[in-house]
Amino acid sequence: MLHNPTRFKPSPIEKDFEENDEELEFYDFNEPEPGSPPGTLIIDEDASIPNIFLIDYNADEAIGVQLSTPEDCIPYLDSQSVSWLDVQGLGSEDVLKRLGKVFNLHELVLEDIVNIPQRPKVESFADQELIILHMVTSRDDGRGFYDEQVSLILGKNYILTVQEEPENDVFEPIRQRIHRNRGVIRSQKADYLTYALIDAIVDGFFPVLEDYGERLEDLQDEVVENPTRQTLDKIHKIKRELLLLRRAIWPQRDAINALIREESPLIDRQVQIFLRDCYDHTVQVIDMVETYRELAANLMDIYLSSLSNSTNEIMRFLTVISTVFIPLTFISGVYGMNFDTDIPGNMPELKMPLGYYFFWCVILAVSGGLLFYFWKKGWLFSPK
Amino acid sequence: MLHNPTRFKPSPIEKDFEENDEELEFYDFNEPEPGSPPGTLIIDEDASIPNIFLIDYNADEAIGVQLSTPEDCIPYLDSQSVSWLDVQGLGSEDVLKRLGKVFNLHELVLEDIVNIPQRPKVESFADQELIILHMVTSRDDGRGFYDEQVSLILGKNYILTVQEEPENDVFEPIRQRIHRNRGVIRSQKADYLTYALIDAIVDGFFPVLEDYGERLEDLQDEVVENPTRQTLDKIHKIKRELLLLRRAIWPQRDAINALIREESPLIDRQVQIFLRDCYDHTVQVIDMVETYRELAANLMDIYLSSLSNSTNEIMRFLTVISTVFIPLTFISGVYGMNFDTDIPGNMPELKMPLGYYFFWCVILAVSGGLLFYFWKKGWLFSPK
Amino acid sequence: MLHNPTRFKPSPIEKDFEENDEELEFYDFNEPEPGSPPGTLIIDEDASIPNIFLIDYNADEAIGVQLSTPEDCIPYLDSQSVSWLDVQGLGSEDVLKRLGKVFNLHELVLEDIVNIPQRPKVESFADQELIILHMVTSRDDGRGFYDEQVSLILGKNYILTVQEEPENDVFEPIRQRIHRNRGVIRSQKADYLTYALIDAIVDGFFPVLEDYGERLEDLQDEVVENPTRQTLDKIHKIKRELLLLRRAIWPQRDAINALIREESPLIDRQVQIFLRDCYDHTVQVIDMVETYRELAANLMDIYLSSLSNSTNEIMRFLTVISTVFIPLTFISGVYGMNFDTDIPGNMPELKMPLGYYFFWCVILAVSGGLLFYFWKKGWLFSPK
Amino acid sequence: MLHNPTRFKPSPIEKDFEENDEELEFYDFNEPEPGSPPGTLIIDEDASIPNIFLIDYNADEAIGVQLSTPEDCIPYLDSQSVSWLDVQGLGSEDVLKRLGKVFNLHELVLEDIVNIPQRPKVESFADQELIILHMVTSRDDGRGFYDEQVSLILGKNYILTVQEEPENDVFEPIRQRIHRNRGVIRSQKADYLTYALIDAIVDGFFPVLEDYGERLEDLQDEVVENPTRQTLDKIHKIKRELLLLRRAIWPQRDAINALIREESPLIDRQVQIFLRDCYDHTVQVIDMVETYRELAANLMDIYLSSLSNSTNEIMRFLTVISTVFIPLTFISGVYGMNFDTDIPGNMPELKMPLGYYFFWCVILAVSGGLLFYFWKKGWLFSPK
Amino acid sequence: MLHNPTRFKPSPIEKDFEENDEELEFYDFNEPEPGSPPGTLIIDEDASIPNIFLIDYNADEAIGVQLSTPEDCIPYLDSQSVSWLDVQGLGSEDVLKRLGKVFNLHELVLEDIVNIPQRPKVESFADQELIILHMVTSRDDGRGFYDEQVSLILGKNYILTVQEEPENDVFEPIRQRIHRNRGVIRSQKADYLTYALIDAIVDGFFPVLEDYGERLEDLQDEVVENPTRQTLDKIHKIKRELLLLRRAIWPQRDAINALIREESPLIDRQVQIFLRDCYDHTVQVIDMVETYRELAANLMDIYLSSLSNSTNEIMRFLTVISTVFIPLTFISGVYGMNFDTDIPGNMPELKMPLGYYFFWCVILAVSGGLLFYFWKKGWLFSPK
Repeated sequence: MLHNPTRFKPSPIEKDFEENDEELEFYDFNEPEPGSPPGTLIIDEDASIPNIFLIDYNADEAIGVQLSTPEDCIPYLDSQSVSWLDVQGLGSEDVLKRLGKVFNLHELVLEDIVNIPQRPKVESFADQELIILHMVTSRDDGRGFYDEQVSLILGKNYILTVQEEPENDVFEPIRQRIHRNRGVIRSQKADYLTYALIDAIVDGFFPVLEDYGERLEDLQDEVVENPTRQTLDKIHKIKRELLLLRRAIWPQRDAINALIREESPLIDRQVQIFLRDCYDHTVQVIDMVETYRELAANLMDIYLSSLSNSTNEIMRFLTVISTVFIPLTFISGVYGMNFDTDIPGNMPELKMPLGYYFFWCVILAVSGGLLFYFWKKGWLFSPK
Repeated sequence: MLHNPTRFKPSPIEKDFEENDEELEFYDFNEPEPGSPPGTLIIDEDASIPNIFLIDYNADEAIGVQLSTPEDCIPYLDSQSVSWLDVQGLGSEDVLKRLGKVFNLHELVLEDIVNIPQRPKVESFADQELIILHMVTSRDDGRGFYDEQVSLILGKNYILTVQEEPENDVFEPIRQRIHRNRGVIRSQKADYLTYALIDAIVDGFFPVLEDYGERLEDLQDEVVENPTRQTLDKIHKIKRELLLLRRAIWPQRDAINALIREESPLIDRQVQIFLRDCYDHTVQVIDMVETYRELAANLMDIYLSSLSNSTNEIMRFLTVISTVFIPLTFISGVYGMNFDTDIPGNMPELKMPLGYYFFWCVILAVSGGLLFYFWKKGWLFSPK
Repeated sequence: MLHNPTRFKPSPIEKDFEENDEELEFYDFNEPEPGSPPGTLIIDEDASIPNIFLIDYNADEAIGVQLSTPEDCIPYLDSQSVSWLDVQGLGSEDVLKRLGKVFNLHELVLEDIVNIPQRPKVESFADQELIILHMVTSRDDGRGFYDEQVSLILGKNYILTVQEEPENDVFEPIRQRIHRNRGVIRSQKADYLTYALIDAIVDGFFPVLEDYGERLEDLQDEVVENPTRQTLDKIHKIKRELLLLRRAIWPQRDAINALIREESPLIDRQVQIFLRDCYDHTVQVIDMVETYRELAANLMDIYLSSLSNSTNEIMRFLTVISTVFIPLTFISGVYGMNFDTDIPGNMPELKMPLGYYFFWCVILAVSGGLLFYFWKKGWLFSPK
Repeated sequence: MLHNPTRFKPSPIEKDFEENDEELEFYDFNEPEPGSPPGTLIIDEDASIPNIFLIDYNADEAIGVQLSTPEDCIPYLDSQSVSWLDVQGLGSEDVLKRLGKVFNLHELVLEDIVNIPQRPKVESFADQELIILHMVTSRDDGRGFYDEQVSLILGKNYILTVQEEPENDVFEPIRQRIHRNRGVIRSQKADYLTYALIDAIVDGFFPVLEDYGERLEDLQDEVVENPTRQTLDKIHKIKRELLLLRRAIWPQRDAINALIREESPLIDRQVQIFLRDCYDHTVQVIDMVETYRELAANLMDIYLSSLSNSTNEIMRFLTVISTVFIPLTFISGVYGMNFDTDIPGNMPELKMPLGYYFFWCVILAVSGGLLFYFWKKGWLFSPK
Repeated sequence: MLHNPTRFKPSPIEKDFEENDEELEFYDFNEPEPGSPPGTLIIDEDASIPNIFLIDYNADEAIGVQLSTPEDCIPYLDSQSVSWLDVQGLGSEDVLKRLGKVFNLHELVLEDIVNIPQRPKVESFADQELIILHMVTSRDDGRGFYDEQVSLILGKNYILTVQEEPENDVFEPIRQRIHRNRGVIRSQKADYLTYALIDAIVDGFFPVLEDYGERLEDLQDEVVENPTRQTLDKIHKIKRELLLLRRAIWPQRDAINALIREESPLIDRQVQIFLRDCYDHTVQVIDMVETYRELAANLMDIYLSSLSNSTNEIMRFLTVISTVFIPLTFISGVYGMNFDTDIPGNMPELKMPLGYYFFWCVILAVSGGLLFYFWKKGWLFSPK
């Protein structure tokens, strides 16, 4: 049926995500000027040119092609097989508008797809379901994660997915399952594919969380044993990133819940049972994010306590040394005075035999007494 | 149809917003004396004299005039075209009361419009919808924002908006869309215009939030690298301002939600779909405000930790220097004593050959030992 | 119709509210012994003897009399005009019990009126509505507020109000509006009067809040510029008082909401629209109380940070001075030693020409080096 | 009808509540081994042997007897009069099981009664209502309170109450009201008695709260004026005890609310109005507990601030004294050096006339300058 | 009927739980790769090989056998008696898949059972109820607890339980009750057995909580009397573990509540009354966990306060010693100066008779004055 099968998903172009990139997630958003008419699309100048991939399958065969224009998919949409159009990149207003026309998208839907980031949500239209989710993927350097908006438009026998970037998606195993006909996916409808995609997105949070689990465990040792300024930075960074994760996953729960409860002709009751499983996983992710956030908050408390502990210890050391030697210095100072010893009664100690030995005895007695006092108070040895 | 087309929105008179102005937002409110009859209007003496602008349009033509009295708009209201009366300034009780008569406003509605600030809300009356919202605009100096109450009264084929001030509104692009007939706005009813205005107000929060995002990012660097008293002030200021933003946006969500759910003859179902988009944006704004508030709270924690860190470092330095030199000073003090060296056994070191070199050896040994001890404890070099 | 018109509301007897009075608001309550039968009245021995004022009006005339016994009002109650009986003071069990009989109050209602303080609430009875609210008034000295329970019993054509004290009420303007026939109040029923009284009570929170706004603003400057122990006390005091305000206003919201939603024959639908306005004001008061509470909590944080900052600065100063002079003192101590300079090699510096100048050079070099080090670390000048 | 009237409630045997007893409230609970069959009773070996008191009354007469076995009450239960069986003590499995048989209790009900503590709750059975509440009573030494579970089983014309201990109950006034026929209690049914008992239990929280109010007030003075380690202990103790109170009262609210809403043939609508009053009091208790908890949390903050303040003050003192004297000591050290004054240029000051006076002038100038500097910085006098 | 009765539950093989094991509970989870088809089972390589035990009983007889393959249980399932198949260990994909086939489990159910940990939940299927709970058991060394997922599948006359591990279950008493025919369990259906198992799991939290109660009590003494770094670690550890407990018990409440409310043909109304008791216990466990969490948070506060207190005390000590001796040292330094006493007016004190005694008088006066000052300030004796 299809004549141009290409490999599934091209090797992603190595794009450079700068180090400080993740800072921007909190602050960057593409909103049109206040007062713009609805449907105004904001194209970020750094955005990638969209790649368009089509996978079309039925129980018997499956094929994947890279399309050059959105209109190329029209013949596939008209067939009875399931068509999955995957658009990767938001860098061309023209392509996106033509896409909107091909799929007959409401102007607000197109705006939601393009003007990232949107809150995850589900909206029902006459013959389409719009599902906006956030997909996270671990960074290779283990420092943070990429957060990408994925919009799914589910129609009668097609599904359109729009990703922000060509890199870092979690859909490859699903492409393989379709391609190699593993499991039941090939014999199911578009709603099952939707479930599979949502499931992949939700399960994609787990590896990211595992990274954070390890980082928290490392930090915990560091914060107790050797807290430095870097530790503070790291805790703060983790807290910020967990805040981002939280913002991505919480509304996802409501969105998936809406999908389960909805009476939509597009989603089969059988598939809703599968979606209930996605929902459970989402709740589990939320549980873990909240737990990690609490652990990170605890780390902050321990950091402060460790610092106070350290200051206390330093002060104790200073106090012991100072208060032992300050009286001694005074005593030696006394015998360094130049009172005229020829005048009787003036500093007789200086002329006494054994005066010097007597001086050392006083020194030892005073310092010994003080050290004993400190030892009793528990200041001498810092508790390990 | 209209004979006196003036330019849309006159250039705002440069009014001086004093530096400390924003402090007052928490504490200033125009409430009548307790026990006053309902409908008592409080005119702030600093309030601007109302300017009245009328825009009247249908699919074919649009015209904008500045009116001198509220009654001038009556002929426009009676026509079939959509009339938008925009009143800017609350400084004249007479004008406002006549306005109330022209539009047949309930005395409580007039009170809500004039006695600012009110909480955002929606109230339905027989043939009118009262919508009270807060409009925020960035200050030019990037320090904070202006918060202005906008009251919208939606009627059959008119909309009345009342703003606090003639400056700083976000409606200019909408005036332009009407004037230049961009988009579908000219062919729609007053409810669509209402949506457009609400949309502009909600989207107006985004540029303000972007400012705060940048300020938070700057502050974050400052708080880790070089926390000073100013940093504390800045964090506190941002927290206060975010509190204000929060107070402005939270009830807005409920108000817009009420508009969506209401079965009003004045608002078309089609327009409610657009309002759902406004609602999503409002939720997004709330999300961001809450996120920023949490980030600001984190900054406060980091500030305190940085301070403790700094105190700890200073103490460590003092301790190292003090505890190294205090014993040395004692030793030198001992050999400055004036014990009579002619008495045998009294300070024999002073007469020993090489006594002086021996003294320096002791000094070096003691200080070396202490420094080694500090180095092992990690006190010598402050962790960077 | 009435023969003894007296002046409206007698000048309040100057009663002395002691300074520490407000402390007690948290802890004082008149509860009967556990196990007492319902309806047991607790008369506080300090309570004022009740004054009873009656205002009776219709559209044509209004009159105010001070009654000596509760039974004196019976003829007025039987007439068609609206009767407002205002009882001020809870100091006589006899009077209150007779009042209960005249108005046919349930024993629990009488208990709620007398055994102050009660939580604000609304309870419906066959032909009466019991409304318990808290009325706050600013103290003249600007330090805190008075909190007084007001019980309103609304009947067919009468309203009974019971106040704790004869002083400090917010009803005077309403008495004037009735007396001088301002607004529509004279032509309305008892339910409108009820609205007017509730409105006055709710609006009475605004001046009190304004006081707190000013105090918070003053405190904010103080806490940043010159935090002392008094500042801590003041913050704590404001937090306590806002806690009291909060406790007074929160349940008020529920009570007024109940009044709006209730289908009561005693309250007209038209009046419920006015009550909706009261409700909005109550929510606004709650908003402000919560905002002020958050601001006060912020002040506490800033106070602590300022203290840490101050300690840090002091430590830095001590460290600079100590670590500069301690080595110098050691050096001068060395040359104060009494090693026998006749023995060759013993302290040759003492006999060197220019030895003394050399000594000062060393001193200057050491102290200069240290000061340069401190300057580079930024410890020399405290950041302003 | 009854032949053995004894005095109402025997004088409680003085049992020794150890000092550390209250610590255990958090941790002690009688739960059967996991996996035990339902209805397994756990008898604490320290529990008191049950005393069984019966009060039986109607409008005409009332009588109180101490029973030796549970079965003794059967004739009373069969009569038309109201029977109140009060069992005090949980120390005998045999008695409790026979009690269960006499009253035909579900095995889970008996378990709930005996295996203390349970959460307050209400459960309906065919012809019985089970009400489990917590009764608190002040300790005589004013340190904390006793918390005792009371189980009420309301039947057709009887009520069974089971208390943990024979001491410290709040029911004595009710026994007196029945005995002396005060109020309407004698002419009412068992449901009114139930109300009276619940009312006594709820009102029993107020004296306990009054104690805490006083302790908080005392602590507040202490924490500002003279915070010590004991203060910390006291704050912590109050926080723990308020936590206990809170745990006792919160579920009580739900339980009483359930009683009010329930359509039970055992509870008259008229009595439900009285229970509404209990509910209000419960909410008031909750309000106060939460307020006290917040006040206690504030005290903790103030304690920490006071400590920081004190450390700051001590540091300031140390800094002033140290930095004034350290330079002076250096200067005096300089002139104690032994440079050979015969070599020209070596320490010429020592031989100058008035050198000594000049020295003192320098000393005065340096210390005066430093003190002036400290005075300007506000470090000299600690702000009171 | 059964021919191979073995002892109930084999003695658990002593498996070594390493010390750091519990750290992993936060971070370890068996989730399939994102994008895997539903029903993918993840077998942990450390997981135990499943042991399969069958207990089959009716009112007359009961028998327990260890089965070698899941299919061995088929004849028992077909009989009218109640069959309880207990699978302990998740180490064999083959066994688990065959188990799924025998019991006709949905692929998602099997995934939930195997891919631990799941959130506690209840799901209804046509003829099965899936109940996933968490079972906790104390560790023998009193340090923490084991947390194990138990999945219960309730069918018509059977129940299948799947545990993570062969060790540490709380079901032994129930096996004994069945074996020895104690209570009513033998005469009941599978739903009663389900209740008994859930009850055992919920009650299994109490001994664990008792351990934490004791540890908290110990810690509380430690934190006030002698706070060290270990104390901090211990508090942190308890907080982490309580967080785990909380995560295990909170969703359990919802699950059991769902069981109570559900109209399932598999669960009798009579058994739901028993489940209500489980629900109460779960709420009680939650109450206690939350209380313990709050107590642990309090401990953290006290720890910090104690540290501040200790630092304050050390500083006070240093300050007293330093400020007493520093002036003395200065004075003795003065009289150690070498001003030429032959020049008149230079240091006349040195030649005065009694000059030395005068020196000591000054020393005593200065130090006495300072000590008196400190005593008045309350710095001399640390408050105990």
